[in-house]
Amino acid sequence: MEANREKYAADLSSIKEAHDRIKPYIHRTPVLTSESLNSISGRSLFFKCECFQKGGAFKFRGACNAVLSLDAEQAAKGVVTHSSGNHAAALSLAAKIQGIPAYIVVPKGAPKCKVDNVIRYGGKVIWSEATMSSREEVASKVLQETGSVLIHPYNDGRIISGQGTIALELLEQIQEIDAIVVPISGGGLISGVALAAKSIKPSIRIIAAEPKGADDAAQSKVAGKIITLPVTNTIADGLRASLGGLTWPVVRDLVDDVVTLEDCEIIEAMKMCYEILKVSVEPSGAIGLAAVLSNSFRNNPSWRDCKNIGIVLSGGNVDLGSLWDSFKRSK
Amino acid sequence: MEANREKYAADLSSIKEAHDRIKPYIHRTPVLTSESLNSISGRSLFFKCECFQKGGAFKFRGACNAVLSLDAEQAAKGVVTHSSGNHAAALSLAAKIQGIPAYIVVPKGAPKCKVDNVIRYGGKVIWSEATMSSREEVASKVLQETGSVLIHPYNDGRIISGQGTIALELLEQIQEIDAIVVPISGGGLISGVALAAKSIKPSIRIIAAEPKGADDAAQSKVAGKIITLPVTNTIADGLRASLGGLTWPVVRDLVDDVVTLEDCEIIEAMKMCYEILKVSVEPSGAIGLAAVLSNSFRNNPSWRDCKNIGIVLSGGNVDLGSLWDSFKRSK
Repeated sequence: MEANREKYAADLSSIKEAHDRIKPYIHRTPVLTSESLNSISGRSLFFKCECFQKGGAFKFRGACNAVLSLDAEQAAKGVVTHSSGNHAAALSLAAKIQGIPAYIVVPKGAPKCKVDNVIRYGGKVIWSEATMSSREEVASKVLQETGSVLIHPYNDGRIISGQGTIALELLEQIQEIDAIVVPISGGGLISGVALAAKSIKPSIRIIAAEPKGADDAAQSKVAGKIITLPVTNTIADGLRASLGGLTWPVVRDLVDDVVTLEDCEIIEAMKMCYEILKVSVEPSGAIGLAAVLSNSFRNNPSWRDCKNIGIVLSGGNVDLGSLWDSFKRSK
Repeated sequence: MEANREKYAADLSSIKEAHDRIKPYIHRTPVLTSESLNSISGRSLFFKCECFQKGGAFKFRGACNAVLSLDAEQAAKGVVTHSSGNHAAALSLAAKIQGIPAYIVVPKGAPKCKVDNVIRYGGKVIWSEATMSSREEVASKVLQETGSVLIHPYNDGRIISGQGTIALELLEQIQEIDAIVVPISGGGLISGVALAAKSIKPSIRIIAAEPKGADDAAQSKVAGKIITLPVTNTIADGLRASLGGLTWPVVRDLVDDVVTLEDCEIIEAMKMCYEILKVSVEPSGAIGLAAVLSNSFRNNPSWRDCKNIGIVLSGGNVDLGSLWDSFKRSK
């Protein structure tokens, strides 16, 4: 694993550097356990609560690392990104801490609470259409006009290194973990976690959790190349992105399995997070618990030996109104 | 404060003994912070998250200490209590861990999720009418029939000592706290917290938070004696009990103020816990935040110097259905 930085966009040392850089700004999030959920799942579950991270999601780690990695001249011109949600708010917050502008291209239809967070943290919202091409077009226009730096939500070594700091903390907090279940979307989070965790503890298993309605990672693993979906359909609004050129090699090589989940399974897990764990998570945040409780995971003999499972609760930004509607729909 | 155990039902050493006794069984709950809530309140707030405690509320600390304090012969006959909620579940769980029976007298109308917890933890539910006299009558019948030991929800030195362990942890976790805001009902929680905190740090202020519709503690402080209310009316189902003979002297002497809150203020604070702090709390759990945000607290010159405020989020057991109804009602 020593030569990972040549092979991949991040490695254990870039992740440790990121941790040193961002430590004064981030929350070292707690790990919660629940005997009720242990008994339901038949394992010992360790929930790394990134919903308590600043900005309400793990995204602040990567955004903060990216912003702090800029030199003074670059930084002064500000940063830009296109994001439907948590990365946008995280980048706004990281920019605010450094006193630099953040230009956020937000696709129409993004969850209100996430856009509110962008505005609360002082990000300048620029609307685009919901399509990826419109997002990219508007972002590149902003780039040209402002001279700012693009911080991609996941296809960026600084972002991947930042997200990997979760695994550093989790393995310090709970040494005996033998698998980590991580939501997958663009792959920044799982790439960072996999690179850090497998460098520290090579025997550890990394399992991705993905909505069935946005299962491009599962399909990519089968095809052996990046598959992008023409449309996605899932309640987990944070998990609709496609893998990038920097995250795919890590997902291809280091992710041991992709478990895909129906929206109803995600909602059921989300409900358990509220009612049993007492943690407010968004649908994307609860998918790791849904994976561990799914039949495909339970019945897979490869994971029978995984007794101590880390689960990344990735975020908690949810409109209580939409949350309640989804609970009602699921009945 | 050295002679507190002669004066009061608990003191720092009984609380430390309780902590040593219960430590292997309880969660050392994390302290969460939120810059958004700091900025809204104009203080630094430190949330001691007892909603993450086993059984979903601080009550497990006292119940566990009481059960572990029994000698083998007493313990074998089991324990009994009457409680509408969290103490019942906590005592059931503590009894289950020790392998002894728990007889729980539950008044009609208790929240479903709390009764479900009692059943899940193996407590034997015996229904009574909602009145205190019916609760006590049924409980004393069970006592006679089983020879079990009554564990009162709060008017018991072992319970008060157990709840006080919260303050030991909080002041270890955050040394700079200069006030702690604590929900008040029967007074077991605030008595334990006040005795521990003021022994460790005499300058610390202890502020009670109480619903306006169940403001017997506020009235008692004014009257200089225990006042009991003929009826209570509040959404905070956990805060309807009256002070007891063992908790009143502590409340009288060591609680610096009682802030009373309207239900709408409690609901608003509860919403903030979900949306900003990402923590699921029950109404009683959120009242401390409501207190800190209230005008009567903000405008009281006595608390102007309290910059670093600990808030006990006492519990998180709530039916999501009733929660949503209360959010809608409050609009």
